[in-house]
Amino acid sequence: MLNPPDQARLDQLYDELLEATESFLGYPVAKDFDYADLTRFLRFPLNNLGDPFAESTYRVSSKEMEREVVAFFAAQTRAPEGDWWGYVGNGGTEGNLYGLYLARELYPKGIVYFSEATHYSVRKNLHFLGMRHIMIRAENNGEMDYTDLRETLRIHRDCPPIVFANIGTTMTEARDDIRHIQSILDDLVIRERFIHSDAALCGGYASFLDPRPAYDFADGADSISISGHKFIGSPVPCGIVIARKRHVDRIARSIAYIGSLDTTVTGSRNGFTPLILWHTIRLLGVEGLRLRAERALALAAYAEAELKAIGIPAWRNPNALTVVFPETSERIKRKWQLATQGVAHIIVMPNVTRAQIDEFVADMKADQANPEFNSCTE
Amino acid sequence: MLNPPDQARLDQLYDELLEATESFLGYPVAKDFDYADLTRFLRFPLNNLGDPFAESTYRVSSKEMEREVVAFFAAQTRAPEGDWWGYVGNGGTEGNLYGLYLARELYPKGIVYFSEATHYSVRKNLHFLGMRHIMIRAENNGEMDYTDLRETLRIHRDCPPIVFANIGTTMTEARDDIRHIQSILDDLVIRERFIHSDAALCGGYASFLDPRPAYDFADGADSISISGHKFIGSPVPCGIVIARKRHVDRIARSIAYIGSLDTTVTGSRNGFTPLILWHTIRLLGVEGLRLRAERALALAAYAEAELKAIGIPAWRNPNALTVVFPETSERIKRKWQLATQGVAHIIVMPNVTRAQIDEFVADMKADQANPEFNSCTE
Repeated sequence: MLNPPDQARLDQLYDELLEATESFLGYPVAKDFDYADLTRFLRFPLNNLGDPFAESTYRVSSKEMEREVVAFFAAQTRAPEGDWWGYVGNGGTEGNLYGLYLARELYPKGIVYFSEATHYSVRKNLHFLGMRHIMIRAENNGEMDYTDLRETLRIHRDCPPIVFANIGTTMTEARDDIRHIQSILDDLVIRERFIHSDAALCGGYASFLDPRPAYDFADGADSISISGHKFIGSPVPCGIVIARKRHVDRIARSIAYIGSLDTTVTGSRNGFTPLILWHTIRLLGVEGLRLRAERALALAAYAEAELKAIGIPAWRNPNALTVVFPETSERIKRKWQLATQGVAHIIVMPNVTRAQIDEFVADMKADQANPEFNSCTE
Repeated sequence: MLNPPDQARLDQLYDELLEATESFLGYPVAKDFDYADLTRFLRFPLNNLGDPFAESTYRVSSKEMEREVVAFFAAQTRAPEGDWWGYVGNGGTEGNLYGLYLARELYPKGIVYFSEATHYSVRKNLHFLGMRHIMIRAENNGEMDYTDLRETLRIHRDCPPIVFANIGTTMTEARDDIRHIQSILDDLVIRERFIHSDAALCGGYASFLDPRPAYDFADGADSISISGHKFIGSPVPCGIVIARKRHVDRIARSIAYIGSLDTTVTGSRNGFTPLILWHTIRLLGVEGLRLRAERALALAAYAEAELKAIGIPAWRNPNALTVVFPETSERIKRKWQLATQGVAHIIVMPNVTRAQIDEFVADMKADQANPEFNSCTE
């Protein structure tokens, strides 16, 4: 047992987290999960060492469930039969790092193209991997400016392009159109190319949207990164990365000289998060996840309408869970934990309730009535 | 609730893990932990986003505890007062990747030196980061061959050396001597240099050993990586990385142009593992951890002696928890989950009991009596 002051600190943290989790609309993490049935697995030193599709002498693992999770998302993202591979990693950033690494191995002289609306972690990844890159303009809604992309590709036709597509930008949930990107590349007769789909945000529900965004393998992606702790929800950040197997086999060859067939980024890997994802997939199934997406979309539409009704120029990208509006007062930003960047947003994840939206809209209305609280200066 | 077949599968996995966790001596992961008091935190979408020393609008975090964990290990590794920084990451590999990244930012033209006994993941990291590197011979016990290091450094004095020191190699727990490495560099008047200490294995207890290995900041390390799931034990892989703050500040400047002060490898970070490490540190304290190390060392000495007593040429590096011996039969390798590589080993982590050692030695003895099971061919 901890000594009483330490125990008290732990209890206090618990209470603070309980409060902080209640009022929060600004980050794309679902929190309506209940993994009580899985906590018993925390007594084991779980470790899905190395490749999930390779057996290891270390047997305290959940690799079998991990393979099923990857297979589930491979099906959702229409991965080519017999030509996919993937694993459960630590989140969207690791998945993006993996996709870019794969692209670099295939095209060491490639140039990475990504829009200015891309999350800052991607530039960190590129710096890490030492990859040449060019930032492309974004439209006002956050989507890549395809005219700028085409013009920029045209003057660099000697270097294989690696296009980093956002399937849900951080601020406005804009989705770059991979079919459109492919058509530009076809038009310029650029054959050597790689497209990474950063579906960290939307990968959990994009397959349920109508129209379906052009984001997956059938649309032309070579690798896809999906967060596990966003739409599905997890107490520990996690993500799924899937790539065309023939690309991964190329990497495997290029690192075989170091005596390892382990193509994952880390060696020791979390064996608990695959159980979490497996549990949700089995519990809800495709239809349950589809319903989950539909309910959230309906509530996002409601939030947009309610904000407009009190005169706030709120808007959403088509079929987005993210509702965008001008920056708010510090008071609201703090209470609802909003990440602002020129504009503000709430993200209507599946756990968000109508009562929370109503309270948020009431707060926004109260703020309008008290302009002294309305300043953005700190 | 899961449907009955899925529930049955989960229950079966639990039983299998229970069995697999019981008989296992081949991997350096302690399993004598009880974090029952922490499972309640799994109801929160914990996320220690970005830098642990920077506040975020996302408040569902355990950053305060994380900072205490890092401070604890900074003290254990004699980090210079006011000149250290660190975070809790996903394991030893991430810590090594971070240290090498830091070194590359400081010395883009540097050459990395590491011994042939180094874990394969390091070469994967170097490939990832695109760093020039030279492998140095190792002595039979797994320690770096300092003569080879000196000769190799001598012919590359124009490139800043980045020495990757193993503080506990995977196979034999050999520890490279950072003071010795520093004296070689001093001797060759090489001023621009970086030493990374890969203390994944030994970092949890090296400070309690007598003589104390030359592995930490006071000995001359610039960055140190320590596993959390090895000596301390955790159901989820985790690790601590600590570096001299002025190096990290350099990285922070070099990535400031991308609009981020986040110098961690991933953006979303596990907030549960800092609680695990904090819990153990507070529960055991320095003295409790010291006792834990002493008990394990005594049992490792016992295991070595017992194996020798039945005629097996077992040996240990000084003050090592790893007992090395010739490759065993497949039967033993499988039952005790031994990772073999020319030689075999057991790692007497703090959870290992005398009864397990006795059973293992009895199995080894039975194998000697049945030479038909003794073949290493599969």
